[in-house]
Amino acid sequence: MIFRQPIRIEFNHCDPAGIVFYPRYFEMTNSVCQSFCREIIGHSYAEMMARGQGLPAANIAVNFHLPSRLEEVLDWRMQVTRLGGSSLACRLEAHCDGTHRLTADLTLVFVADGRPYPWPQELRDRITAFMEAPDEP
Amino acid sequence: MIFRQPIRIEFNHCDPAGIVFYPRYFEMTNSVCQSFCREIIGHSYAEMMARGQGLPAANIAVNFHLPSRLEEVLDWRMQVTRLGGSSLACRLEAHCDGTHRLTADLTLVFVADGRPYPWPQELRDRITAFMEAPDEP
Amino acid sequence: MIFRQPIRIEFNHCDPAGIVFYPRYFEMTNSVCQSFCREIIGHSYAEMMARGQGLPAANIAVNFHLPSRLEEVLDWRMQVTRLGGSSLACRLEAHCDGTHRLTADLTLVFVADGRPYPWPQELRDRITAFMEAPDEP
Amino acid sequence: MIFRQPIRIEFNHCDPAGIVFYPRYFEMTNSVCQSFCREIIGHSYAEMMARGQGLPAANIAVNFHLPSRLEEVLDWRMQVTRLGGSSLACRLEAHCDGTHRLTADLTLVFVADGRPYPWPQELRDRITAFMEAPDEP
Repeated sequence: MIFRQPIRIEFNHCDPAGIVFYPRYFEMTNSVCQSFCREIIGHSYAEMMARGQGLPAANIAVNFHLPSRLEEVLDWRMQVTRLGGSSLACRLEAHCDGTHRLTADLTLVFVADGRPYPWPQELRDRITAFMEAPDEP
Repeated sequence: MIFRQPIRIEFNHCDPAGIVFYPRYFEMTNSVCQSFCREIIGHSYAEMMARGQGLPAANIAVNFHLPSRLEEVLDWRMQVTRLGGSSLACRLEAHCDGTHRLTADLTLVFVADGRPYPWPQELRDRITAFMEAPDEP
Repeated sequence: MIFRQPIRIEFNHCDPAGIVFYPRYFEMTNSVCQSFCREIIGHSYAEMMARGQGLPAANIAVNFHLPSRLEEVLDWRMQVTRLGGSSLACRLEAHCDGTHRLTADLTLVFVADGRPYPWPQELRDRITAFMEAPDEP
Repeated sequence: MIFRQPIRIEFNHCDPAGIVFYPRYFEMTNSVCQSFCREIIGHSYAEMMARGQGLPAANIAVNFHLPSRLEEVLDWRMQVTRLGGSSLACRLEAHCDGTHRLTADLTLVFVADGRPYPWPQELRDRITAFMEAPDEP
């Protein structure tokens, strides 16, 4: 299944060339992951923080296909590509106006007290259910 | 009348103390102003840019009443307090869970080709209509 | 006495109009305050964090006099205007090329465990010594 | 040869877990590239902007090895790995206290009027001279 989140391009995201400054895309990838945790896994970043847990990035690789501009609304799409013992690999894409703007492959690691920690079964079940659910038509 | 915009607190906004880092509030005040221009004035930042116009801040004063935390959704409220020849003074407040988080008084200046420029009549009319409209019950 | 810190304008700070986006100035005011704590008070933000202390902003008022551009190096100047029981009022100015870009008046509050806390005497002594020291010629 | 730039970790860079928020690392990679252009290529981002040129990222891949904390000073190191017709591939590493924090592989593209444009010979010569210069002992 695909998790989707629209993000409007704000002044805040744009550089003097009038396009999204690439570091801001990573604020967006993090926003999508934060929403995914809250809405799909049912375990928000705030809950993680309160329990000494976290979900830092181990690696990320992005290809920027086309620039994005002020006031455009990006259609972010996130898929889980692999669920590991304490990791979560995912692919995020941003699309707008029928064009594909960027692709990001990201590996997150579930940590507790600063160390990688196995996904709790309840969270693992929800991620698996998401992965196996068919896309909405 | 009051223009409202909800903004969820993201990881992106928070500092090591777990609360919103104050510079991020200014990204939010700008986001609210950008939405106000698009939705109320009907003249988006993108349209301004395309015409060599802008709406920079001349001054801003903020009182931080209470901290805000990850995953809270702030209810931003914006009122126009004075419409000048080429300026717009406004008050923005952020509320959440029945508490008042901050108050910002901001003066924006309409510029064209880098200089203050009188508000075009059409835009002035829309701002005035907004100011005179009653609050929704 | 005046505490000074140069900050070069980076792509990161600029908006589609090619000038510093005003929220980024607040990242700079915070950077100057962070350096002031480390170098003048001798009690860094990292040390504060480790002891459950902090120095959040209670209020800030900024007048933006002139815009700043990519690659300019701002000469930030900070003066303490009032030392309270647990507060610190200061004025920050940014200058460049003989022009005065902005003035910020900021009140910080020393907190411990989330509440205002009296300045420890050692820190208070250092701030007072800074306030009373003559400007370098 | 290796281009180096120290960057101190500010409050601005850190997240509620007290470590650098990964999108902020990309503000740093951009800062290093901006300095490289100004100091090594002798053609600053400001000069590029003034001529309708730019150096956007085509892709970036980062491995985050170890977290970084408030007040640490990262030793950023940049090497050019390949100079193409209008591209520049480089590797950036951040080190601190004898540990290797992250590795970023980045491809930048020289553009003029929004399209890839061959490196002007003068700039190409300077990049080549940098690549061929021995490391300082």
